[in-house]
Amino acid sequence: MDEVGRIAMLARVLRAGGQGIEVGIGDDAAVLSPPGTRLVWTIDEQVEGVHFRRDLASWHDVGWRSYMAAASDVAAMGATPWCALAALVVPVDVDDAALEAIATGQREAAEVAGAPVVGGNLARGPAMSIATTVLGTCKRPVERRGAVAGDGLWMAGRVGLAAAGLRALEEGKGTEPRLAAAIAAWRVPRALFEEGWAMGATAHAAVDVSDGLARDAGHLAEASGVQVVFDEAALLDDAVLLEAAGALGESALELALHGGEDYALVAASRQPIEGFRRIGEVRAGRGLVLRSVAGERRLEPRGFDHFAR
Amino acid sequence: MDEVGRIAMLARVLRAGGQGIEVGIGDDAAVLSPPGTRLVWTIDEQVEGVHFRRDLASWHDVGWRSYMAAASDVAAMGATPWCALAALVVPVDVDDAALEAIATGQREAAEVAGAPVVGGNLARGPAMSIATTVLGTCKRPVERRGAVAGDGLWMAGRVGLAAAGLRALEEGKGTEPRLAAAIAAWRVPRALFEEGWAMGATAHAAVDVSDGLARDAGHLAEASGVQVVFDEAALLDDAVLLEAAGALGESALELALHGGEDYALVAASRQPIEGFRRIGEVRAGRGLVLRSVAGERRLEPRGFDHFAR
Repeated sequence: MDEVGRIAMLARVLRAGGQGIEVGIGDDAAVLSPPGTRLVWTIDEQVEGVHFRRDLASWHDVGWRSYMAAASDVAAMGATPWCALAALVVPVDVDDAALEAIATGQREAAEVAGAPVVGGNLARGPAMSIATTVLGTCKRPVERRGAVAGDGLWMAGRVGLAAAGLRALEEGKGTEPRLAAAIAAWRVPRALFEEGWAMGATAHAAVDVSDGLARDAGHLAEASGVQVVFDEAALLDDAVLLEAAGALGESALELALHGGEDYALVAASRQPIEGFRRIGEVRAGRGLVLRSVAGERRLEPRGFDHFAR
Repeated sequence: MDEVGRIAMLARVLRAGGQGIEVGIGDDAAVLSPPGTRLVWTIDEQVEGVHFRRDLASWHDVGWRSYMAAASDVAAMGATPWCALAALVVPVDVDDAALEAIATGQREAAEVAGAPVVGGNLARGPAMSIATTVLGTCKRPVERRGAVAGDGLWMAGRVGLAAAGLRALEEGKGTEPRLAAAIAAWRVPRALFEEGWAMGATAHAAVDVSDGLARDAGHLAEASGVQVVFDEAALLDDAVLLEAAGALGESALELALHGGEDYALVAASRQPIEGFRRIGEVRAGRGLVLRSVAGERRLEPRGFDHFAR
């Protein structure tokens, strides 16, 4: 199939209407009428060999994950996804069936998000990659800065589970029942759209956990000029994570603090937030602290860093 | 430099304010207040080894070209660029100085466009690539469909010159004076923002010439359900192209019809458009025709096709 044929196939798989979408796939650019007065806008890219391996994830899941990773940034701003574009780099050994499976994964994720893919780009290259840009709408954006001493630290979703799932696949433990939830968390993560929107009303600051809880909460602490305190007991209050860590012989705490790609949301707020549970607090100071029955210790904001490898 | 350091460097190089930009680089997403009621939105990706070779273009020029290629799609909609995001895949052998040069090229292009880079993404990968997404604003979008029989065919900018410049560099003729303009056209193309905006008032349909005049005008013809006629004499009325073609021993007509990456604009319009010259007409029918003193012949919509190679 040539480029025109492939674009026609993608348009067929991805075609969907939505509020304010005047022109979708097939022109030089999409044409949009913003439904609100304020937009949030992000881009994320997933690269073969870095973010996924084709022997560990299906092409469908590669498409799904690429969409969710980008859309999670919109949720983390207290916004709701509106529409998306995707730029695909396609090596010669990725065939049309694979491309259609990727687009199907993108469309299913877009349906969950309520934000269709309205355009994109196709190019050749040495490794498969998907750059996804998502526009969202919000009333009040929740930035990384804005947390103040006395706020509670709240989390929606889980942490550590996707990293456990990836480890399980890398170690050939894909059929181990105690790891099934972890593997699903890595393969088909769900960005937390309702929770992100709920957060928009009251949260002082928020971030999504793409590169590990300690690392991403570290960004929030630094941007806000505060100290973030995690309660170890709250982080370990997850039977599914404990079971997966046990099956791998790994530390559940290490996975929870430093494992990435879960797309949980972490927020600083005075009040509880619908769909969030309390995992710590915000204090005056700088950096990260882990609090347990044994006392307190400083944490490094370590996580996934593409440029430290 | 680690990822945080690199993002800080990019924020320093790219930092720029603009209308409606509430939050720029450094959060989960940019926050924007649209200055108009209607937006156009595009994404383009430039991949090393496909769109550029690092021995033929400086890193500065790689950054500049990546921005202009995306922004040209906004101009082709009769819109004016507003702001941009860029996702960079950076191999281990691209150092921080190269990354800063890329960002400098992006910033300079963004200044010409009047549309700052307000965010982005960094990832590792096997080949350098830059995905650029641009939002623009317009009163009336000019789509590919809409051309009608009796329209004139109008062009702003040049065609064939960038392809001649790339050929010159590939053949080691980088210092040949007769090829200097062609090489500049390939290395530092300028998207036609004023012309695109001027076109918005009256054009029935338009497209930008990224993959070759015949190929891109073919998209316009197909989307509009019309036939596009090129006047050979008008295409060859370019002394700089004739000189470059002569220096290369190539056909100027072949370069003009099938060479890509010039980012000229082609529009169908009843009236003349400021900054455009007439290169043919729109007729009832289908496909492409080349008209010369010798008569008429059909043209294939051939150009650059990533998936036909």
